[in-house]
Amino acid sequence: MSLLVTGSIGIDTVETPAGRRDTVLGGSAIYFSYAASFFTPVRLVGAVGDDAPKELFDVFGEQEVDTSGLEVRKGSKTFRWHGSYVQDLNEAVSIQTDLNILAEAAPKIPEKFSDSKYIFLANTHPVLQQQMACCLKKPKLIVADTMNLWINTARSELMKTLKMIHGLVLNDGEARLLTEKKNLIAAARDVLKMGPKFVVIKKGEHGCLMCSGDDVFVLPAFPADQVIDPTGAGDSFAGGMMGYLSTQGNVSLATLKRALAFGTVVASYTISDFSLGGLRSATRDHIDQRWSQFKQAVDF
Amino acid sequence: MSLLVTGSIGIDTVETPAGRRDTVLGGSAIYFSYAASFFTPVRLVGAVGDDAPKELFDVFGEQEVDTSGLEVRKGSKTFRWHGSYVQDLNEAVSIQTDLNILAEAAPKIPEKFSDSKYIFLANTHPVLQQQMACCLKKPKLIVADTMNLWINTARSELMKTLKMIHGLVLNDGEARLLTEKKNLIAAARDVLKMGPKFVVIKKGEHGCLMCSGDDVFVLPAFPADQVIDPTGAGDSFAGGMMGYLSTQGNVSLATLKRALAFGTVVASYTISDFSLGGLRSATRDHIDQRWSQFKQAVDF
Repeated sequence: MSLLVTGSIGIDTVETPAGRRDTVLGGSAIYFSYAASFFTPVRLVGAVGDDAPKELFDVFGEQEVDTSGLEVRKGSKTFRWHGSYVQDLNEAVSIQTDLNILAEAAPKIPEKFSDSKYIFLANTHPVLQQQMACCLKKPKLIVADTMNLWINTARSELMKTLKMIHGLVLNDGEARLLTEKKNLIAAARDVLKMGPKFVVIKKGEHGCLMCSGDDVFVLPAFPADQVIDPTGAGDSFAGGMMGYLSTQGNVSLATLKRALAFGTVVASYTISDFSLGGLRSATRDHIDQRWSQFKQAVDF
Repeated sequence: MSLLVTGSIGIDTVETPAGRRDTVLGGSAIYFSYAASFFTPVRLVGAVGDDAPKELFDVFGEQEVDTSGLEVRKGSKTFRWHGSYVQDLNEAVSIQTDLNILAEAAPKIPEKFSDSKYIFLANTHPVLQQQMACCLKKPKLIVADTMNLWINTARSELMKTLKMIHGLVLNDGEARLLTEKKNLIAAARDVLKMGPKFVVIKKGEHGCLMCSGDDVFVLPAFPADQVIDPTGAGDSFAGGMMGYLSTQGNVSLATLKRALAFGTVVASYTISDFSLGGLRSATRDHIDQRWSQFKQAVDF
């Protein structure tokens, strides 16, 4: 079923122990869209300036990503991020962040996308997330991401967003900040009290956990023996998860679990190369094979 | 089948966010023995001074732990450790360590224990580990632990130990130090080249991974919503793992995987209270129930 994502599109400069790449394509919506498009057609909503990299318009190749919700705003500049994982592959140090177009009005969801059933609201101001959620006619599943900035500066608005969505995906540090609980299971349970039916906490190289009602699900990361660039891993995880979910027609616990495993596997391609190189090297067949390999590696 | 453990017996003072306990029973061999005794009778070899806590002689209660290899050395003092997890539940800060009897001659393995088939050589000087391994008539499975101290100060002796054992259990920091590899899968593969048939890397709250030949197995920790005291979790993990293994008569990959899951579950009792309180509150039925619950929580 129709999957819509709204989020950032960026120009990244990334340094990792494996090297450095300057002005490559990045952003949450880009990683998400590519990852999800292995499973289902994706509707991408985002905005770039007139400095948008040419790569943006051909990166998806044969992948079914509808970019007609992509706004190229004249006189604006694309979001730029320069980060380093040289000290710690599990945590980026931001060297420079130029919000540029992200500090302007949000892109509009085209009318023709308003019938979307599965929606991922990547990290942005919670008020914008609410506005976008309100544009949808009859959404079946709305999942959102958030970040420290909004938890610290827009907590009451974030609380409203949490009441409008079905699922929240966030990382361990964000979960701790949001709930003031150190223990992640306790934190996840607190998030559930804020509104969502399920919460997924991403732990980077340590995998993820999900809580829904009284159920707890835990997964390690895919055992990769080499990490080239972790940029976009969390967004790719969400993309794989939502991509799979949108093909299933239900969000039962069993379906959610399989979706998280697909997210884990798709993210393992992202970290295997810089920018979108890892995802571009993968096929759905590869992903299915690695999913079986992952199942084998955690099964007892 | 007969399971022998040699390791430390200590008097601990522990501080955690949940409180503080002074001069409580601890040490690798104690946690290991209690944990393993849920599965099989255990032969404990260790040494204490004449200041040994009374609790040592009744702690095992109904558990089948043969303490006839426990040496009470007159004029010596028991090993003492004072540590704090107040800053970080995943990493102890040692406030004071008095090796005492651990700096003297190692306890002897009684002749009647020399027919032991399953052996766990808890962390001690690699030369002592070798001497103990040599005392055994026909061991089926020897697994050892080690620590930073020996990796740094007795590397060549440790390399000899690694050629005499079948399995190595160590934590993530130790694996990185031993192999100079940051990535833990790469580190585990390097350890296999040093001798052991399998290696288990413990990652504290992030679970564990095992490599054996080309096979990789990864497990998250049991999802606990409260950690009172992590002291002894790693030794309890090894105890649960070895205890289960020694009842199986084989060390196939499938058996090893189940053993690691039992180790994980047993350790989850250890962290639920100070000292041996958590283990003492458990029964084999509890462990089997929690094992099924854990399987459910990681199955997809």
